[in-house]
Amino acid sequence: MSDLCFTLRGLTNNFQPLIEQLRAGDPRALARVISTVENRGPGWSELLKALFPHSGHARILGLTGPPGAGKSTLVDQLARHYRKENRTVGIIAVDPTSPYTGGAILGDRIRMQEHFSDPGIYIRSMATRGSLGGLARTTADVATVLDASGRDLVMIETVGVGQDEVDIVRLADITIVILVPGMGDDVQTIKAGIMEIADIFVINKCDREGAERVEREIRALQSLAVRTDKWTPPIVKTVASQGAGITELAAAIRDYEAYLQKENLVLKHSVDSWQNRLLEMLRDALLERAQEQLANGAVARYAAEVAEHKRDPYSLVEEIVNTLGK
Amino acid sequence: MSDLCFTLRGLTNNFQPLIEQLRAGDPRALARVISTVENRGPGWSELLKALFPHSGHARILGLTGPPGAGKSTLVDQLARHYRKENRTVGIIAVDPTSPYTGGAILGDRIRMQEHFSDPGIYIRSMATRGSLGGLARTTADVATVLDASGRDLVMIETVGVGQDEVDIVRLADITIVILVPGMGDDVQTIKAGIMEIADIFVINKCDREGAERVEREIRALQSLAVRTDKWTPPIVKTVASQGAGITELAAAIRDYEAYLQKENLVLKHSVDSWQNRLLEMLRDALLERAQEQLANGAVARYAAEVAEHKRDPYSLVEEIVNTLGK
Repeated sequence: MSDLCFTLRGLTNNFQPLIEQLRAGDPRALARVISTVENRGPGWSELLKALFPHSGHARILGLTGPPGAGKSTLVDQLARHYRKENRTVGIIAVDPTSPYTGGAILGDRIRMQEHFSDPGIYIRSMATRGSLGGLARTTADVATVLDASGRDLVMIETVGVGQDEVDIVRLADITIVILVPGMGDDVQTIKAGIMEIADIFVINKCDREGAERVEREIRALQSLAVRTDKWTPPIVKTVASQGAGITELAAAIRDYEAYLQKENLVLKHSVDSWQNRLLEMLRDALLERAQEQLANGAVARYAAEVAEHKRDPYSLVEEIVNTLGK
Repeated sequence: MSDLCFTLRGLTNNFQPLIEQLRAGDPRALARVISTVENRGPGWSELLKALFPHSGHARILGLTGPPGAGKSTLVDQLARHYRKENRTVGIIAVDPTSPYTGGAILGDRIRMQEHFSDPGIYIRSMATRGSLGGLARTTADVATVLDASGRDLVMIETVGVGQDEVDIVRLADITIVILVPGMGDDVQTIKAGIMEIADIFVINKCDREGAERVEREIRALQSLAVRTDKWTPPIVKTVASQGAGITELAAAIRDYEAYLQKENLVLKHSVDSWQNRLLEMLRDALLERAQEQLANGAVARYAAEVAEHKRDPYSLVEEIVNTLGK
């Protein structure tokens, strides 16, 4: 315990003990490293550099769907299923949150309590922040930490169906889209944006009226396009609250894993994903350096000039880039 | 017509005629400039540089809310209201779309037809793209074009309640969040993420059961936090499909405008907004220059090395930034 108690700043030159504790399965070490990475605390980058070589063994599942689809229940049931197979699980729940409600943290605690007795399940909630598009990247980094900690499976669960969620679940090896019957006409619109990323569809709450209709709609959309990898995403029906269909879902996941292996798609997918991630990391790092190079308060002054229409922002940005390049 | 027919590449040195046509209200010139800006076609940057000095006169409204809240109908009714006051309106509908359904474009056409006879309303749909976070920026640029074309009001309408939508409506001078009764428990979660950005709340379909409950929930959340500008967002009840409450909504918008003027908040808001936008533009421009400087295929090679766990991406990005900085 004592070596966990000094600050991480002191650890940046010697965080090996912390990493060893994390790799030995110490949940407090894991929580501390995740917090440091999530909040970009002192030493976050060094921690990730040291952990990365230990990552790459976990299977990453991404689960998304519209609000009310019962994602959390499904994720919990799937985690239980994997625990029966003696596989360890890390869950990252990416929730919208608010200074008003602190929603994510509350949900975290409630769900944590339930699994409290099982160290084989680690749940972590992450808040949707107003950062410059950094949530997908932070989620990926936290997944790397869980992976390096030796978890067999990492499940990334997002609430919502926007570009954010697409960016987040795209990090996963296997993407599961959860739909639900009877959500009205707008479901058509919602589904449109995420149809492309689903490796497996789940119709949860399939005992509700309209399950067949949702299935027909998915089939109809599927018939219009062929994936480049020729995989046809299966549709699994579940009632997660009763544990129904979970074994079938796990089997569908196994099938897709086998397909990825057979077609040698795992590495290809990983290269594609890293190409995007490297560009995002590069973009952030370049801006960070530019901000260090710019005079204090320069951006605020420029913003005032643009807001008062004294300068056009398009020429201004070109000028800044040219000046910094010299 | 003939001067619209040669390609924009030829126009980069002399697009003044096109800009004059746009400023004279020619809808084809407007459509062409918007397409060029949206698709980053040849000359897009020069067009924006030339148009920016003409912008800054339109009031920008941002409207968002969960799917099924009836946003499009409300936006159309509000546009009709402003047309009766003889004010011209530009609408940017940011819709999730899909290669399967082409949803945005279809909706665009249906809505366009209805207003076809009135050149005072211009509607443009924009697709949610898988770009590196570029949608908010492109939406802002299109708003600048509509603004420079002399529209009195520009309404930006988004479907969804994620960070994307927050980023997009944040560009607006006035943000309107549209809720609807009876959306179940998850509405609580949805609302949390967007409560902070609402200058005005609308409870649409307020003839449905549960409208009072939604209102109570908004009031309860409001009582927990005070905005830095001390404004208390009013709650307007509408039944947009019947045109009910639209006059009241327009009045609420006018009240907030007056408040912004009285408290000298318009410029402050604009400076804040430009500070974020300049940083985003700078980040994109820096990455673009870096990609020009990097050897062809370098990123793909780096991605393969990281995917095979031969290099850690965190040290790699630092190295690239340091090399480019020399």
